Amino acid sequence: MKVIVIGCGAGGGTSAQFARKRNRKAEIKIFEKGKNPQYSKCALPFVLCGEIEAHSIIEFSEDWFKKAKIDLQLDTEVFSIDFEGKIVETDKGSEEYDALIIATGAIPYSPIETEGKTYFFRTIEDVEAIKREVKHAKEAVVVGAGLIGLEVAEALKKLGMKVSIVELMPQILPAMIDQDMASLVRKKIEGEVDILLNEGVKEINDGKKMEVVTTNRAIKADFVVIATGNKPNVSLAKKCEVKKAIVVDEKCMTSMPDVYACGDCTQYKNIFGNEVVVGLGSIAVRQGMVAGMNAVGGNEKMPLLLNARTTKIFGLEVAAVGPLQREFPFQPIIGKFKGSTHPDYMKGKEIVVKVMGDEEGRICAAQIIGPGASQRINAFALAIHTGMTFDDFSKTETAYAPPVSPVIDASTIACDIAKRKQK
Amino acid sequence: MKVIVIGCGAGGGTSAQFARKRNRKAEIKIFEKGKNPQYSKCALPFVLCGEIEAHSIIEFSEDWFKKAKIDLQLDTEVFSIDFEGKIVETDKGSEEYDALIIATGAIPYSPIETEGKTYFFRTIEDVEAIKREVKHAKEAVVVGAGLIGLEVAEALKKLGMKVSIVELMPQILPAMIDQDMASLVRKKIEGEVDILLNEGVKEINDGKKMEVVTTNRAIKADFVVIATGNKPNVSLAKKCEVKKAIVVDEKCMTSMPDVYACGDCTQYKNIFGNEVVVGLGSIAVRQGMVAGMNAVGGNEKMPLLLNARTTKIFGLEVAAVGPLQREFPFQPIIGKFKGSTHPDYMKGKEIVVKVMGDEEGRICAAQIIGPGASQRINAFALAIHTGMTFDDFSKTETAYAPPVSPVIDASTIACDIAKRKQK
Repeated sequence: MKVIVIGCGAGGGTSAQFARKRNRKAEIKIFEKGKNPQYSKCALPFVLCGEIEAHSIIEFSEDWFKKAKIDLQLDTEVFSIDFEGKIVETDKGSEEYDALIIATGAIPYSPIETEGKTYFFRTIEDVEAIKREVKHAKEAVVVGAGLIGLEVAEALKKLGMKVSIVELMPQILPAMIDQDMASLVRKKIEGEVDILLNEGVKEINDGKKMEVVTTNRAIKADFVVIATGNKPNVSLAKKCEVKKAIVVDEKCMTSMPDVYACGDCTQYKNIFGNEVVVGLGSIAVRQGMVAGMNAVGGNEKMPLLLNARTTKIFGLEVAAVGPLQREFPFQPIIGKFKGSTHPDYMKGKEIVVKVMGDEEGRICAAQIIGPGASQRINAFALAIHTGMTFDDFSKTETAYAPPVSPVIDASTIACDIAKRKQK
Repeated sequence: MKVIVIGCGAGGGTSAQFARKRNRKAEIKIFEKGKNPQYSKCALPFVLCGEIEAHSIIEFSEDWFKKAKIDLQLDTEVFSIDFEGKIVETDKGSEEYDALIIATGAIPYSPIETEGKTYFFRTIEDVEAIKREVKHAKEAVVVGAGLIGLEVAEALKKLGMKVSIVELMPQILPAMIDQDMASLVRKKIEGEVDILLNEGVKEINDGKKMEVVTTNRAIKADFVVIATGNKPNVSLAKKCEVKKAIVVDEKCMTSMPDVYACGDCTQYKNIFGNEVVVGLGSIAVRQGMVAGMNAVGGNEKMPLLLNARTTKIFGLEVAAVGPLQREFPFQPIIGKFKGSTHPDYMKGKEIVVKVMGDEEGRICAAQIIGPGASQRINAFALAIHTGMTFDDFSKTETAYAPPVSPVIDASTIACDIAKRKQK
C-alpha cells in the first residue's frame, strides 16, 4: 500500500512516522513545498533572539526520514488532488495513493495589506528575514498581542530593540485566556514592551521608516511584524467537507474516502461538541499519530479537543486548557484563587488559578498564571478528560513539601471555591 | 455542643478550625502538651539551616485561635480519656465532651538506645537543641536516609558541617520510592554527603566524641541525629481499635462513639484496601478537615489514601504517589521513561518517570525525579483517584511550549510504554 502525506510540519511528519511504526512495508511519501523537514515552529522566537540555532529546531532530519524508509520530497508542491482517481499532482509529476494525509497547515493572515518591511512569523525563512532587518534596526512594531506577537516582541527586546505591540482587542492573549486573566498578565509584564490595546491597524505605509497607522495614532518603526493569526490552508481540500478548516472526525478522516487530515488545516470537536480549528503543535502531533496509524489500517481515536496551551513571556508562565469563558454555551461556575507556589514562610511566587465548570460541578476549563502553570494545567486536562467535578478535584491529595509546594495547592483551593458556588 | 481536640499539630489544629467553620456556636477546646500552636513540622529543616526563622513556621498563632473562638490550651497534657463518661482528664483538671478528636501525632522511634549528644528531629525544641550543638561542632552522623534524614543532612551541610548518613536498608528514601528510583537519586546527590547503605546501627557511644557503631564500622562525630521514623502515639486511645495506629474510617471516626482521630496517630485504607499509617502533614490536614466537620454534625468523607509525597534534596525534586512496588498485591505493569523537562533544543533537565498499574492498565502509583516532579505527581494523583488507565492518561493532551515543556510530556510517554506492555 502507498501512503502520501502532503506537508512535513508537525502533523504531516508525525503521521508519516506513525504510519511507518504501524506498517513496516507500506510505501510512504511526503511532499513538502518548503526546504526544511519537520521542525518546531514554536521554537522560532528562540531562534530569532539567538538563544538557539535554526538547525537545532529540526526535529527530524532528511536522514532520519531516509532511515525510516519514508520518501521525503522537499521543495515539492502539490497542485491538486484527484480524489476519485486517488492521484496527487505535484510540480514534479503525478502520484497515486491508497491513503492520503493532508497536513497543509495554516497560512499567516493579515487584516490589512502589507508592504515594505513587513514580515510574518511562521517559518524559518521569516525568522531569517527578520534577523537580517534587526542588524540595522532600532525599533519595531508587532501587530497582534497574541501568543506569537508577545513571544516575538520579547525576542526583539532581547536583541536590544524598542518594541511596540498594537492589538485590536481590549486584551492581550485574546485567543488564549480570558480578559480578567489577561489583565493580570499584562500588569506583570508592564514596562517590558509598549502594549497598545483597542488599536485596530488601518494601514501600514512604506517609506524611509515604516509607519503603522492605527485608529488612534501613527507609529514609526524600522520594520513591522504581523502576528494576527493564521488561516487554515485548505486550498487542496475543497472537495472535502470544509467549514473554517477541513472537517475531520475522531479518526482524523475527512469526508472523502481514504483521505485523512491533521494539524492546523483541520477542525475538530471540543468538549462542548463545538467544532474548533486546530492551532497547536501538540494537537497536530497527536492527530498525526492517529491519522498515520489509521491510514495504514489502524483504529486509533482522538479524544475531544482540550486545547491545553502554554507560553512563557518575559519570564511569566501562562497556561490554559478548555474553552474560554466567552466560548461557554452556558454561564460557567467560576472558582478563582490567588495563591502561592510555596507555603508563606518559604516566600513562594504568586500563582493565579481560574477554573470553570458547569452547574453539576463538572470541570470544563482552567487558566493559570505563575510558575508551574503548565504542569498544573496538565492536571486540569486530565480532570476535564475524565469528567471530574470541582469536588473530586478538591478532594484529591497533592504532594506537599515546603521547598516544593504548599500544603493545599492553589488549584485545589480554586476548585473548592467553585464547589461552594454550586447550588 | 462541646468539641475537645487533643493535640494542636496539623491534624488537630485543622480539625478545630473546620469544626468552627461548620459550627459558629460550638464550644471548641484544644489541649496541646507543647508550648507552640500549630506549626509546620516539614519546615523544620529550613529552620535548622537558618533559611527561615522558627516563628515564621507557626501557621496559626494563639491569637488566631482566640479570634476563631477556639480555646487553645498549650502546655496541657491529657492523661486519660473516659470514653463511656465522655470525659478527658488533663493535668489541669477534667473536661466533658460531646465529640472528641484525637490528634496526638507520632513519636520519633529509635531502633537502639540513645544517649549523650543524640537528637531526634520532630519538634521546634529538637531543632533548637541541634542548633546549639552546631555552634561548636564540625561533623555529624545522621541515622536513617529517609526523607527527614536526608533533609537534615542537607541542612547540616549548608551549615558547613561534614555529614555522614547511615542507613540499614540497601537504598535511600526506602519509604518514599522504589530502589531503582532511589539509586538514581543517590547518583545525582553523590558527593554532597557520605551515604552508607546496608549499615545497621548497633550502638551509639557517648564520649568526648560520639561514636556510631554500625555492622561495618565505627564513625566518630560531634553529635548524632536519629531519623529512623516515627511511631503513632496511641497511648490515650487504647480502648479504640488500634492496630499499628488508631483505625479510622472514611469519616475519620474511631471505633468509639463520638470519637474521631486524624493525622499521624491514625491508619486508613489505601487504594488496595490495605490499612496504612498516616505519615504526611498534607493528609493530616485533609483528615483534620473531615474530622472537624464531622465532629459537629458534618458528613464529610476521606477518599482512599494516595500518599502523594514530595521533597527536594540537594536541589533535586523527588515525588511519588500510591504504593511502592513492593506493596503491590500483584505484579504491576511498569512504564519507566527518562525524558527532559523541555524539548531537546532548549536544553531541559532530566526527568525520570516510573508509573505502575494493574493488568487492565489502571494506574496505581507513580514516582518521578526531576524539576516539576511534584506537579506531575499531582496529575497522577488525579489519575489514580479517578481510576484512569495508562491509555486514558497517554491520550490526554498536555500543554506544550518550548520554554516550558516538551511536545509530549515524560509522564505521557511513561504511560505509553506501560500501555504497550499490557496484554
